[in-house]
Amino acid sequence: MANYNSVTEKVIEEIKASVSGRVFVGEEINIDFFHDEMPIYGEGQPEVLVDATNAEEVAKIVKICNENLIPVIPRGAGTGLTGAGVARHGGVMINMQSMNKILEYDEENMVVKVEPGVLLNDLAEDCLSKGYMYPPDPGEKFATLGGNVATNAGGMRAVKYGTTRNYVRSMEVVLPTGEITTFGATVSKTSTGYSLKDLMIGSEGTLGIITELTLKIIPAPKETISLIVPYEDLDSCISTVPELFKHNLNPQAIEFMEKEIVNLSEIYIGKSTFPRELEGIEIGAYLLITFDGEDEDQLNDIIEQAAEVLLEAGAIDVLVADTPNKIKEAWAARSSFLEAIESQTKLLDECDVVVPINKIAKYVNYVNEKAKGYDFEVKSFGHAGDGNLHIYTCSNEMDREEFVKQVDEFMHDIYGKAYEFGGQISGEHGIGFGKKVFLNKFEGDVNTELMRGIKKVFDPNNILNPNKVI
Amino acid sequence: MANYNSVTEKVIEEIKASVSGRVFVGEEINIDFFHDEMPIYGEGQPEVLVDATNAEEVAKIVKICNENLIPVIPRGAGTGLTGAGVARHGGVMINMQSMNKILEYDEENMVVKVEPGVLLNDLAEDCLSKGYMYPPDPGEKFATLGGNVATNAGGMRAVKYGTTRNYVRSMEVVLPTGEITTFGATVSKTSTGYSLKDLMIGSEGTLGIITELTLKIIPAPKETISLIVPYEDLDSCISTVPELFKHNLNPQAIEFMEKEIVNLSEIYIGKSTFPRELEGIEIGAYLLITFDGEDEDQLNDIIEQAAEVLLEAGAIDVLVADTPNKIKEAWAARSSFLEAIESQTKLLDECDVVVPINKIAKYVNYVNEKAKGYDFEVKSFGHAGDGNLHIYTCSNEMDREEFVKQVDEFMHDIYGKAYEFGGQISGEHGIGFGKKVFLNKFEGDVNTELMRGIKKVFDPNNILNPNKVI
Repeated sequence: MANYNSVTEKVIEEIKASVSGRVFVGEEINIDFFHDEMPIYGEGQPEVLVDATNAEEVAKIVKICNENLIPVIPRGAGTGLTGAGVARHGGVMINMQSMNKILEYDEENMVVKVEPGVLLNDLAEDCLSKGYMYPPDPGEKFATLGGNVATNAGGMRAVKYGTTRNYVRSMEVVLPTGEITTFGATVSKTSTGYSLKDLMIGSEGTLGIITELTLKIIPAPKETISLIVPYEDLDSCISTVPELFKHNLNPQAIEFMEKEIVNLSEIYIGKSTFPRELEGIEIGAYLLITFDGEDEDQLNDIIEQAAEVLLEAGAIDVLVADTPNKIKEAWAARSSFLEAIESQTKLLDECDVVVPINKIAKYVNYVNEKAKGYDFEVKSFGHAGDGNLHIYTCSNEMDREEFVKQVDEFMHDIYGKAYEFGGQISGEHGIGFGKKVFLNKFEGDVNTELMRGIKKVFDPNNILNPNKVI
Repeated sequence: MANYNSVTEKVIEEIKASVSGRVFVGEEINIDFFHDEMPIYGEGQPEVLVDATNAEEVAKIVKICNENLIPVIPRGAGTGLTGAGVARHGGVMINMQSMNKILEYDEENMVVKVEPGVLLNDLAEDCLSKGYMYPPDPGEKFATLGGNVATNAGGMRAVKYGTTRNYVRSMEVVLPTGEITTFGATVSKTSTGYSLKDLMIGSEGTLGIITELTLKIIPAPKETISLIVPYEDLDSCISTVPELFKHNLNPQAIEFMEKEIVNLSEIYIGKSTFPRELEGIEIGAYLLITFDGEDEDQLNDIIEQAAEVLLEAGAIDVLVADTPNKIKEAWAARSSFLEAIESQTKLLDECDVVVPINKIAKYVNYVNEKAKGYDFEVKSFGHAGDGNLHIYTCSNEMDREEFVKQVDEFMHDIYGKAYEFGGQISGEHGIGFGKKVFLNKFEGDVNTELMRGIKKVFDPNNILNPNKVI
């Protein structure tokens, strides 16, 4: 780690003279900016917080900091789960939330140009009002789009539509040296040199600061139907998933959930939609599946085929939610999982591992078995359609030090198992600060050194979001 | 450019002692290896040619060359169009064509593991025989999959299914320093550090040598129908395309072609399928569209809607090809465009530009207008669904020097116009050697320097496929 300089009065004056946005210094900075949604990875206090207003001003701040060897931390809505948006070495935090304009729809090329501080929810709703859909659908709807791109956020619809990466056509970026450049173009395909755009996606604010995005949109599907599918246990639940793909039923989303987390969440939202027992069988796990299509008949055909496949593969029943209201109810519990956990948990850590889909059940069973040896509780749910699991370690009783120690041992163990299964550390939350130690361990020295080398090419002074990712 | 060493007797002995594949030296090397399919960019003669048999041996060769400062050029089937697979500075060429085994299907995770020398055509057929489809569908079916990944090859079906990039889950790579590593994993999504896999895709053998690929496959669509859609002129032809997207008709492929190239190709294949005149109107341009789906009824619905949209938007007629034989006939002319041009042309160069789809007609008209000022002929066709145009400059009369000079001026002009329209230099063929000068000019100094820096991180001695891309 480089030896950074503190922000001096002179630097503050230089910054204030360079920007039109608000500048907060020291105690003027709201403590909300000291952490993200996973405070277990530690707090960090920026020395200065600047509201970004445009690329030129972001570039000026970055240039000043680069010249003075001061860390710069870009920050979206602070909804991250890895500590990527936390200032761990002081410095200047650039708050991108005021750059929140949807700039322009280009309906012939099916793209929309936005500032990076636009919230996912705002773009999603704006698109729908125009008959379009922005397919990426991460659980956290109030993240910024810049943050989504920085983590290559996935979400429920990744099964059918892919992750954020698949929807970024081009981006304007301020590099750590203060230059403004563009990666990619409006065009839908390209083989024009190394894909700097793809390198930026998922780089968590360590290679550049995104100041504008051109995103692909699609016509909104006309019809949507969800299915709640109860199973006796997780194994039979998960083993259904490859069958859906083999039959080319192309679901938009396939989530799995064990009964414990459904209980917890339904108590939290005060409403029960998922059956606990059917035909005298106690339900152990569920799939929640959504299909979309262009007309009711087509969708009904798909649902009919899907029901057949699901029942054949061991589902106890298939409950259809075919009105907007019923679909909303079916998804209400799933949408509140993290909130429900957070509301009832003092100490919390998470693992966002991704494994091949045919290994999900085996992996979750391994995790549940391992968890028995520790004092914390484990709550899991995840994207059955793409093998991305969210495993939460929770405790209200343990002291923090002991929790961190036990969780660290547990995480090393279960990440190791994921690696053995051909998995990766993160499906959609990223590496940030919290998962750095695992990246080094599981990507190997060769890949880690390549990543370090790339970081140095973009950021020779290591001032941009230092101590994150690698 | 580094000062490379020549291959000495000692190095040849070292290589021979390290590998089990055949080693050819000097005049033993077949002249086919001196060029690719675009010889206008110049020939190059490797000093040694080695048949690769496995990653370990490739690594040994690379290590020897890296230590001795000798260029290494990986080579697939030599079907490239930019000179990327040509030895411009002597050195050792590694022929990947013998590593041509389809290793393993993993049907639960819907991936197939292959060696990089497998031909696209072989994988496509093998997949179909098992009920699967490997969606990328570049025009050249006898390219290697390693080459496809190295150029991020696109093809006809990119409109619906995306390019090669979207189907690479993981790859084993020999780095220019001789280490063997893996980028990516079988999993379908990941946010695990910088995407080295995406950096490798489209890097044209300059960052590493691919020795194994894990590729995504999908269930083969059950039904396919193609439409031949004649128009009076190119403008009305191209302006239809956004309408198809707006109506969410999700075509698999949309190709446009002007009458001249259809004439040329149908003469070449000796069969006429495209009408030249309808209802007394002379046809100026055509769309060739393919839709796929899960059953006949669904597809008929789509065709009905599409026909309405197309006729509304100015098509003179919509001719349906709904049997495998008729579809094959409809595509026969399109599939032979390049071959037809090559068979009749002594001097040939091409531009593989990609522009936003609403700019295609304007761009092609600009190109045709500009071409009038030169002695060569211009023949164009392309992927109307994604804005990727193939513009060929052809001459049988000019002398080579004059041809190169005129083409150079013309290319600078039309690439400049593409840039102005928000396009990029290459949609799917890559940069290689032939387009290097344009990459520098149009990506700008900042991006070019980043690419150079990345190259240096991977290849500090600049031995791997030097003088390509950047």
